[in-house]
Amino acid sequence: MVADDLAELFHELIVATRILANQKVLDAFGHVSVRHPRDPGRYFIPRHRAPELAEISDILEMNLDSEPVRPTEFRMYSERVIHGEIYKARPDVNAVCHHHSHAVLPFCISGRELVPVFHLPAVMGHVPFWDQRDEFGDTDMLVVKPEEGASLARALGRNWMVLMRRHGATVAGTSLREMTFRTVYSCENAALQSQAMAHGRVDQLSPGEIALSSAHSVRPPSLGRAWDYWVRHVEKAGLMPAKAAANSGPASATRPKTKRGPATRKVKKRR
Amino acid sequence: MVADDLAELFHELIVATRILANQKVLDAFGHVSVRHPRDPGRYFIPRHRAPELAEISDILEMNLDSEPVRPTEFRMYSERVIHGEIYKARPDVNAVCHHHSHAVLPFCISGRELVPVFHLPAVMGHVPFWDQRDEFGDTDMLVVKPEEGASLARALGRNWMVLMRRHGATVAGTSLREMTFRTVYSCENAALQSQAMAHGRVDQLSPGEIALSSAHSVRPPSLGRAWDYWVRHVEKAGLMPAKAAANSGPASATRPKTKRGPATRKVKKRR
Amino acid sequence: MVADDLAELFHELIVATRILANQKVLDAFGHVSVRHPRDPGRYFIPRHRAPELAEISDILEMNLDSEPVRPTEFRMYSERVIHGEIYKARPDVNAVCHHHSHAVLPFCISGRELVPVFHLPAVMGHVPFWDQRDEFGDTDMLVVKPEEGASLARALGRNWMVLMRRHGATVAGTSLREMTFRTVYSCENAALQSQAMAHGRVDQLSPGEIALSSAHSVRPPSLGRAWDYWVRHVEKAGLMPAKAAANSGPASATRPKTKRGPATRKVKKRR
Amino acid sequence: MVADDLAELFHELIVATRILANQKVLDAFGHVSVRHPRDPGRYFIPRHRAPELAEISDILEMNLDSEPVRPTEFRMYSERVIHGEIYKARPDVNAVCHHHSHAVLPFCISGRELVPVFHLPAVMGHVPFWDQRDEFGDTDMLVVKPEEGASLARALGRNWMVLMRRHGATVAGTSLREMTFRTVYSCENAALQSQAMAHGRVDQLSPGEIALSSAHSVRPPSLGRAWDYWVRHVEKAGLMPAKAAANSGPASATRPKTKRGPATRKVKKRR
Repeated sequence: MVADDLAELFHELIVATRILANQKVLDAFGHVSVRHPRDPGRYFIPRHRAPELAEISDILEMNLDSEPVRPTEFRMYSERVIHGEIYKARPDVNAVCHHHSHAVLPFCISGRELVPVFHLPAVMGHVPFWDQRDEFGDTDMLVVKPEEGASLARALGRNWMVLMRRHGATVAGTSLREMTFRTVYSCENAALQSQAMAHGRVDQLSPGEIALSSAHSVRPPSLGRAWDYWVRHVEKAGLMPAKAAANSGPASATRPKTKRGPATRKVKKRR
Repeated sequence: MVADDLAELFHELIVATRILANQKVLDAFGHVSVRHPRDPGRYFIPRHRAPELAEISDILEMNLDSEPVRPTEFRMYSERVIHGEIYKARPDVNAVCHHHSHAVLPFCISGRELVPVFHLPAVMGHVPFWDQRDEFGDTDMLVVKPEEGASLARALGRNWMVLMRRHGATVAGTSLREMTFRTVYSCENAALQSQAMAHGRVDQLSPGEIALSSAHSVRPPSLGRAWDYWVRHVEKAGLMPAKAAANSGPASATRPKTKRGPATRKVKKRR
Repeated sequence: MVADDLAELFHELIVATRILANQKVLDAFGHVSVRHPRDPGRYFIPRHRAPELAEISDILEMNLDSEPVRPTEFRMYSERVIHGEIYKARPDVNAVCHHHSHAVLPFCISGRELVPVFHLPAVMGHVPFWDQRDEFGDTDMLVVKPEEGASLARALGRNWMVLMRRHGATVAGTSLREMTFRTVYSCENAALQSQAMAHGRVDQLSPGEIALSSAHSVRPPSLGRAWDYWVRHVEKAGLMPAKAAANSGPASATRPKTKRGPATRKVKKRR
Repeated sequence: MVADDLAELFHELIVATRILANQKVLDAFGHVSVRHPRDPGRYFIPRHRAPELAEISDILEMNLDSEPVRPTEFRMYSERVIHGEIYKARPDVNAVCHHHSHAVLPFCISGRELVPVFHLPAVMGHVPFWDQRDEFGDTDMLVVKPEEGASLARALGRNWMVLMRRHGATVAGTSLREMTFRTVYSCENAALQSQAMAHGRVDQLSPGEIALSSAHSVRPPSLGRAWDYWVRHVEKAGLMPAKAAANSGPASATRPKTKRGPATRKVKKRR
C-alpha cells in the first residue's frame, strides 16, 4: 500500500512527464524523476519506455547510486545515473528532467550560449555546457556510468540547467512544478533566441532582471497558473492519468518492503 | 443581474480571448480586457489565470486605477495597470491585449523594427518600442506599478501597438474585434517579416498603402469575415463559452452594487 | 434545379477550397473559382466569406466582368476581378486561386525569385512578379478595379502563377485538381527554397527537367493520388461538404434563369 | 491464404508506412517496401496510392526486377525500381523507404552535407549524394528505369541513406523497425542541423561516437521504445490498420500461386 503523499507524488510525476511530452519537449526518449519526499536518499523514475507512455504502475524506486531499491524485472533507463548523481550532488534538487528538445538541441550542436532573452525563462539562469567527450573520449554518448553522471552533475554545479554537447539538456528544480516551468520556458527561450540570432542582434536580461524575474516566476501563483494551463492541454490530448487510489501504486512500491538494499541479483546490467 | 449588453460583451471578451489563445498568441500568460461600454471609467478583465481557461464568471470590473470596483477574493493579474493606464490615456481605446507571442518576441529581443509587409497587417501602423529598464532600471520586468503602466501608455502614444523589450507586446483597438484582428495580423506580419529578413531584403507598404489598406480592413465586413473564421476554429477546438443567460454573469457584476468605490481592504497586494 | 454536371462541379469547387484551407494555404482571406464548363463566359465563386466556411449554397455565377449573372443580396469578394480578368485573358484557364500563404509571402516581401527546387513543384513553371504600385500608385492593395485585374492577368501572361508584391499570389490551372496541385506544391517549394536559401546555396531544376517533371505531374494518376490524400485529410478534419443532391444547388443557380444579363440594381458596390 | 508470418509482416509494413506518414516524412508521395522473409528474390510494396492510404489489401509482391509476381490490374508505383535495385545490390537490406521529407529536402537543394549532429541519428552514418542528371541528363526526375535504380543503388553503396539532388531521399534498413528509426531520426537530424547552420557553427559526432551510438540505437530495446511511441501516435491519429486475420491478406498474395513468373501481359507499362 502506497502512502497518500506518495500516491499524489506519483500522479504528479506522471502528469509532469505528460505535460513535457505534450509540449514536445520529450518524444520517444528522455525521462523525468522526483526525489522521495521523506527519504532524500531515494528517487522515483518510471521504467524504460517512452515518457508519454509511462504509467503510475511503471514507477520504480531507486537509491542515489541509481540501483532499484527492490528487485525488478522491468528494464530501466540506462541513463538514470543522470538523476541519481544530481540528487547526490544537490540536496536542494527534488526533480530532474533529461530531454532532447528540438528547441534546445541547436545550441548543443552549435555551442552558442543560451541566455535569458525574456522574463519568463529567467528561471533558467546561467546554463553551462558539458561535453562527454572531454573527459571520456568516444562513447555511445549515453550517460550510463556513475562517473559520467557525476561529471555531468559537476558541470551543472550550482545552476539549474546544463546543455550536453551533441546530445540534449538536463534541467533540475526544487519541485516537479518548478522543474516543469523551467524546462518549458527554457525551450521557449531557446526557440526565440534562435530567431533573434537570425535577426542579427540578441538583447538579454541583465543580472538584476534575471534575479527579480526568476524570483517572481517560481512563486506558487505563477507556477500554478502555467501548470493549470498545461494540465488542461494534457486533458484535451487524452493524456491525463487516472488519480491513483490510495491502496494501489507503483509496481515496486507495492511490494513488501522487507528487503531494502539494492537488489542486484535480478537487476539487468546497465549496458 | 447583468444587463443584456454586458452579458453580450462578457461573452465577446471571452471569445476574443479564446481566439487569441487558439491562434497561439496567448499561452499560460497574457490577458485581454474591454472598456465598460456605458462607463468609460471602468473596464472588465478576467481574474488571474491562463487566458484560455478564463470563464465569463471570472470577469472582474476595474476602475482606471486598476482597482476592483467591488471587493473580490480572486487573485488579479499583477500587470492589469497596462490596461487601466492605456484606457486613461486613450479615450478612443476600448479593448487591450497584452501578450508574449513567439512571432513578435524575436523583435522584442533583437530590437529590429516591425513594419507592415503586406496589406492585412497595415492595421498595426507604426509600432514603437518601450524598454522598462530605461526609466525603472532593473525590475522583475512586470508592469505592475501605475507609473510603469503610464510610461508604457506614453510609449504607445497615438499608435495601436507597442513592443516591450525582452518582454512582449501590447495591442489596442476601438473594439474587441478590431483589437483581435490587429493582434493576429501583427503576429502574422512579424513571422513573415522575420522570414523575409532571412531572405536578405524586406519591402514594406508605403505610408499611403498603410493608410488605405488599414481603412479597408477595419470596416465591419473584413473584421467580421476574419472573426467568423476564428470563431469556427474556436468551436472546433471545443473552446466556445456558453452564451451567458441574461440573469447570470461575472462573479463581481452579479453582486449587489451598493458599494461602488475601490474596495481596498480585501484586495490582495499586487506584488 | 442544377444540372448534374454543375452539382458535381460545385462540390469539387468546395472540396478544392477546403483542401487549400486545410493545407493552410487559405485562412480567413483568399478565394477559389472555377469556370462554367459549358459557358466559357461565366465562372463560379462563393460569396464573401472565409473560404473554409463557404458552402455549396454560397456559390454565385459571374460573367467575365465579374458581375453576378443573377441579382444577389450576398456580399461578394471585392477582388473577384482577379478571376474574371484571368478567365478573359486565358481561355485555357478553368480554375483560379488567390491566396496569402505564409510559405509564398516571404518571396512577395523580399522580391527573391521563386524557382522549382524539386520535381513536384515543376508544375509552377516560371513565376513572374506583379506590383500593383507600379501602375496604380498607392492603393489599398486590393485588386478590385477591372483594370487592376487586367494588369495582373497581363503580368501572369502565359504562366500559371504570379506573385503579387506585399500581397500574395494567384495560381491558375486547366482544372480544379491541377490548380490545387500547383497551389499546394508551389507553397511547399517556397518553404523549401527559403530553407535552402538559409543554407546559402539553391540548386534548381533545369528547363528540361521542369518540362518533363511538369508533364508527368499533371497526368491524372499523379493529380488523383494527391487529391485522394488531401480529401482524406479534409474528411478527417470534418470539412467534407455533403454531396449536393441533383435538385438542390447554389443560391443563385437555383433561381429562375429568365433574367440573364448582369443585374446591377441590387448588386452592392464593390468598394 | 497468407502464411502467418506474412500476415504479420504485411501488418508491420502498413504500420511502418503510417508511422512515417504520421511523422510527416511521407505525404501524398513516397513509398515503403519490405523484402520477402523467405524468398530474398521478392519484395512487398503497396499499389500506387498515397502511402498513408495504403491498406494491407493493396500490397503487391514483386521480383527484384520490380515486376509483379502475379498479374495485377492495380496501378504500381513508377519508382519501384528504387526498391528492387537496392534489394539486388544489398542482400543485407530488408526494408526501404523513399521520401521527400521537408526536413531533408533543403539538403537535396543546397547540396550541403548531412552529418550526424546528435546521438540518435548516428544510425544514418555517412550520407552520399546522387544526382540523376549526372548520368541520365534531363529526365522527369523519377527513378523508373532499372538502370536509374541501379545507379542510385551504386551511389548508396555500403551506406544506409542516400540524398537525391532536387528530389528527396532513400533510406534502407535490415528490418522495417530499423529503417523506420533511421528515417525518422535522419529527418530530425536534418531539421536540427539546418538550425545549427543558422547559428553559424555545426559540431558533429566523431567517427567513434557514430559507431558506438549507432550500435546502441539499433538494439531491440531502443528500436522498440521508439516504435511503441510512434504506434501510440498512429493509434491516436486513427491510422492503425486492423490486424489481418490469418486467412485474409493482400490482393495479390491471396490469388492462386500456380503462375509464378512475372506476368507481363496485363501489367501496365511503367511510363
